[in-house]
Amino acid sequence: MEYKVGVISGDGIGPEIVSEAKKVLDRISQVYGHTFHYEDILMGGCSIDATGVPLTDEAIAAAKASDAVLMGSIGGNTATSPWYKLAPELRPEAGLLKLRKSLNLFANLRPAYLYEELKAACPLRDDIIGDGFDMMIMRELTGGLYFGQRSTEEVDGVLTAHDSLTYNENEIRRIAKRGFDIAMKRRKKVTSVDKANVLDSSRLWRKVVEEVAKDYPEVTYEHMLVDNCAMQLVKDPKQFDVILTENMFGDILSDEASMVTGSIGMLSSASLNETKFGLYEPSGGSAPDIAGKGIANPIATILSAAMMLRYSFDLDTEADAIEQAVKAALHDGYRTIDIMPREGESMEGITQVGTAEMGDLICRYI
Amino acid sequence: MEYKVGVISGDGIGPEIVSEAKKVLDRISQVYGHTFHYEDILMGGCSIDATGVPLTDEAIAAAKASDAVLMGSIGGNTATSPWYKLAPELRPEAGLLKLRKSLNLFANLRPAYLYEELKAACPLRDDIIGDGFDMMIMRELTGGLYFGQRSTEEVDGVLTAHDSLTYNENEIRRIAKRGFDIAMKRRKKVTSVDKANVLDSSRLWRKVVEEVAKDYPEVTYEHMLVDNCAMQLVKDPKQFDVILTENMFGDILSDEASMVTGSIGMLSSASLNETKFGLYEPSGGSAPDIAGKGIANPIATILSAAMMLRYSFDLDTEADAIEQAVKAALHDGYRTIDIMPREGESMEGITQVGTAEMGDLICRYI
Ligand SMILES: CC(C)[C@H](C(=O)O)[C@@H](O)C(=O)O
Ligand SMILES: CC(C)[C@H](C(=O)O)[C@@H](O)C(=O)O
Repeated sequence: MEYKVGVISGDGIGPEIVSEAKKVLDRISQVYGHTFHYEDILMGGCSIDATGVPLTDEAIAAAKASDAVLMGSIGGNTATSPWYKLAPELRPEAGLLKLRKSLNLFANLRPAYLYEELKAACPLRDDIIGDGFDMMIMRELTGGLYFGQRSTEEVDGVLTAHDSLTYNENEIRRIAKRGFDIAMKRRKKVTSVDKANVLDSSRLWRKVVEEVAKDYPEVTYEHMLVDNCAMQLVKDPKQFDVILTENMFGDILSDEASMVTGSIGMLSSASLNETKFGLYEPSGGSAPDIAGKGIANPIATILSAAMMLRYSFDLDTEADAIEQAVKAALHDGYRTIDIMPREGESMEGITQVGTAEMGDLICRYI
Repeated sequence: MEYKVGVISGDGIGPEIVSEAKKVLDRISQVYGHTFHYEDILMGGCSIDATGVPLTDEAIAAAKASDAVLMGSIGGNTATSPWYKLAPELRPEAGLLKLRKSLNLFANLRPAYLYEELKAACPLRDDIIGDGFDMMIMRELTGGLYFGQRSTEEVDGVLTAHDSLTYNENEIRRIAKRGFDIAMKRRKKVTSVDKANVLDSSRLWRKVVEEVAKDYPEVTYEHMLVDNCAMQLVKDPKQFDVILTENMFGDILSDEASMVTGSIGMLSSASLNETKFGLYEPSGGSAPDIAGKGIANPIATILSAAMMLRYSFDLDTEADAIEQAVKAALHDGYRTIDIMPREGESMEGITQVGTAEMGDLICRYI
């Protein structure tokens, strides 16, 4: 088959890691006889430099015309980069928010799990890790505080800033359904996270989740307050299967969860709309401090490409092949610097490799 | 001296832990010749049961008439307790929010640190713990999403819920000053946490913090995005001294930080206004599952009483005496069940004790 893949290399380590993911996709075409047509799309700091804005209308159109978009990462050092002297709506991140909204990418899936092989990189003690953990965070991505009305104005001579958080039942229902659907393919447990003891939007969230839950009698579900969830992720991450939550809480909790695994460089993500279309990107950021050094971990981006094959192109066998190849490379001891064993852990059988070498290795295992 | 202490025992383990804190305060009066007059104040579930509402006007008046208030914890099991069938503004937690607002307790201090003696209870690996960590979270407590306008209404037949987040420069300035003031008495570092790449309120937050920072040239400060902070607390808690943040982010991050220490049962908190008045309470919750069993850890409440002596009554020597007594009890190996060494850690010299026994021990060390 032929597929049109929009490619947003972005800023920082983006181009390096995307280039390894394309290498792996090319290996997949070779072995399984597909053709991926790549179309480069500008977004983020590189788009600001080239066009003055973080995302042009042409870029949005190009993304829409693709079957799926693979992305590296965008943005730079907020303290030193001139991009952050611009008005907020002209900064790199504004491009990403605009793209999510324009393409209606309301369902953000962020897996967070511990690879057996990477236990030694996990910040948690062995008794907490136990046999490992494996959760999927389903974050609502086009509503809430991120897309509410905002203003900053003088009220009686006092600067006052305002953001607003709105959710309607339809927005909650569609993301809740996605959460329960994915739980059905996993361990059939949903933890819905809110702050229902304070927020009206959370109380509506809880009500709608309860309605949706009725259609999934096989799924066990619970409600958890966001502050408690932030604790439980550290105390006992094994308890979670699917975490279902709104935009801002999902931003915070998914980052916490990814750090709890100890290997954010391994974690992919997908942002989906009602169709087969999706935007796939690593969970980590653009890491400007290590950009161009050839040491960034390309695995999260490679696994994002695998998610793309699975969710947008229905190529499960091919996605499995990539995931197996990643496991094989880890099993044989290959590590980029970010997933090396922690101080004091055994280094036996471990080989440190760079970005391109890791990409080559994974191709070889396919 | 004589002091009027309002006492909110509350629900769950509240009465048990408060009673140990009073025991310790009585020991302090004995040794240092003060008199503490206690006045019981109803709040939370016990107030609902007695009066129909979680906080009466008389209770607010009694709190205002005290020199400081010592609190246990409020609330119950949200799934099974009848309190949670009531309208949101009649539930136990609504009492606490109302009290914070009525008394203008805008500055919430939550210390999170690792006791040398409790390393074995910490969920993080030894190389992350290093020589331990010690941070103070300064959370704004009377603004933001917690006290914004809310509504739930049908818009074109679709239920729509709305919360709003407002901060003005004065609210930000007064909490920022408190944050920098406390940093001056500590390691002189402030990490101000916001989501300035998305929220107008966060951008105003950043601007005001920068202005305030100019008055504290000795303090090093940085801005950190909330999602990144949720990661850094797990990755490297040692980096933090004072974390300064708004109400909702502070709720989430302070609970995460307390779990990272592995001993939430040890962590006190203070909620202060512009005067010497304060509300002092343990960071943990009402733990209805262990209420009445005599196994709850009273130390957080005892240390909250010490904070009360220090911040509201200027009794530094007495506060030091309590803190030293807690350390001595730990040093001699006494532990309530929640701070026992983790599985696989050494049990040598450790004695498990109950709530009252721990209170007695601490009195003996004063
Ligand atoms: C870049 C930023 C706007 C974004 C967000 O907050 O959603 C990022 O943190 C993420 O989680 O994808
Ligand atoms: C009980 C609840 C309203 C409260 C809050 O969210 O502030 C609690 O979680 C806390 O942190 O003190």
